[in-house]
Amino acid sequence: MNEISNKKPLILVTNDDGITAPGIRTLIELMNELGEVVVLAPDSPQSGMGHAITLDSTIYCENISSNAVPQNEFRCSGTPADCVKMAVGEILDRKPDLCVSGINHGSNSSINVIYSGTMSAAIEAGIEGIPAIGFSILDYSWNANFEPAKKYIKSIAMQVLEKGLPDGVVLNVNFPKPELGEYKGLKICRQARANWVEEIDKRVNPQGKEYYWLTGKFVNLDQGEDTDVWALENGYVSLVPVHFDLTAHHMLKNLETWDL
Amino acid sequence: MNEISNKKPLILVTNDDGITAPGIRTLIELMNELGEVVVLAPDSPQSGMGHAITLDSTIYCENISSNAVPQNEFRCSGTPADCVKMAVGEILDRKPDLCVSGINHGSNSSINVIYSGTMSAAIEAGIEGIPAIGFSILDYSWNANFEPAKKYIKSIAMQVLEKGLPDGVVLNVNFPKPELGEYKGLKICRQARANWVEEIDKRVNPQGKEYYWLTGKFVNLDQGEDTDVWALENGYVSLVPVHFDLTAHHMLKNLETWDL
Repeated sequence: MNEISNKKPLILVTNDDGITAPGIRTLIELMNELGEVVVLAPDSPQSGMGHAITLDSTIYCENISSNAVPQNEFRCSGTPADCVKMAVGEILDRKPDLCVSGINHGSNSSINVIYSGTMSAAIEAGIEGIPAIGFSILDYSWNANFEPAKKYIKSIAMQVLEKGLPDGVVLNVNFPKPELGEYKGLKICRQARANWVEEIDKRVNPQGKEYYWLTGKFVNLDQGEDTDVWALENGYVSLVPVHFDLTAHHMLKNLETWDL
Repeated sequence: MNEISNKKPLILVTNDDGITAPGIRTLIELMNELGEVVVLAPDSPQSGMGHAITLDSTIYCENISSNAVPQNEFRCSGTPADCVKMAVGEILDRKPDLCVSGINHGSNSSINVIYSGTMSAAIEAGIEGIPAIGFSILDYSWNANFEPAKKYIKSIAMQVLEKGLPDGVVLNVNFPKPELGEYKGLKICRQARANWVEEIDKRVNPQGKEYYWLTGKFVNLDQGEDTDVWALENGYVSLVPVHFDLTAHHMLKNLETWDL
């Protein structure tokens, strides 16, 4: 870490597609304009890892920084949530001012937030008291067009650096596939009620044993026009404030009537 | 599946400690008194898996039912959330009336709900529209005393079978270690605001390469007497209604003032 580190905001960058993904490279490029960047990201893809952490096995974390670029970089054998824990607990000498995760290749809107490694890294940072944002784009292609997303990412990150976020809240930002080169704007949304209906693909291995692939069809059960799914389907960037107090407060009173 | 299956409630039992753990054996014994039980649980421990799902590898799921016991049993190579997906999408011929997960060896109160495989299975069931409950005991011992917990588990499960749960809500029930043989009662609680402060254990492998173990210290930041941590510390069973709409609704208005 160089001498300037005390003067610029410290920004931790991570993701779940792995440290070589184009999405994280775009995020690093943008964050280098805003502060001192440390990248600590999985050494291989970790999609669908949810908030998994590594308890029963070892974690490797290797410094792969080079003088050719401004950021320090570490690749980690752990999950996205592990990466944030490693950064905070071992690698960084002070708490980051911001953690950004992504840009994920694929949607983390609606119920996907639960399965998402990208968002689990942002949520882990939030749990640790670090303002955090997850970014995702609805395009699995390694050649996804990140251009129209850049001004939003920079603007949101700058405002979070300036204003902070309330304790226990992180941001989940999703970009539609930019069909027309520009987005219509940004909508502040709630998470749509949706789920994946399983379509299990059963096969037989060369030894004659049955095995399965998990696939599914996304079903939106929510017709609200204030949801992230609606925004994305209509060409808007979606922003959902996400918290990790999972208490269903509206159910507390009802439960008082139960015989417990 | 036998002929009686249409008359009794169908109960899916799973966990994250693996199908041989004493906790799930206790749960199966209790659920056999309430309905037709199908067990579909991980073939090995899956603690800390959060809501991970298996997307990039295959899943095995083996029928290990025997005539010696009333329940049907399947052991699965996947995560707890995978187990619920496999049950619903492939193994069961109708939607279960209830899904119970646990009894987990170790606390899933407070922020642990985020890291918990036990609760991710219950939440996955909730996402699929199945009333679901996760049970955990604050005792890692394989010889944990489940006796005082049994009447609570049966009573809560019976009431959920009878009344159902609102869409999008599942229950998170934690039992303290029964020091005095009986619990003081049950408290309906909110999730305490707490986190784990990392204590990373750095070591060197026989080849001279550094590696890490993730450990940490639980820090409760919440002095409220309406929290699950308070209940458990004071000898009560805690019950938190949990939902998976992660929208921080209280932040939506504030964000309207941002320049987005």
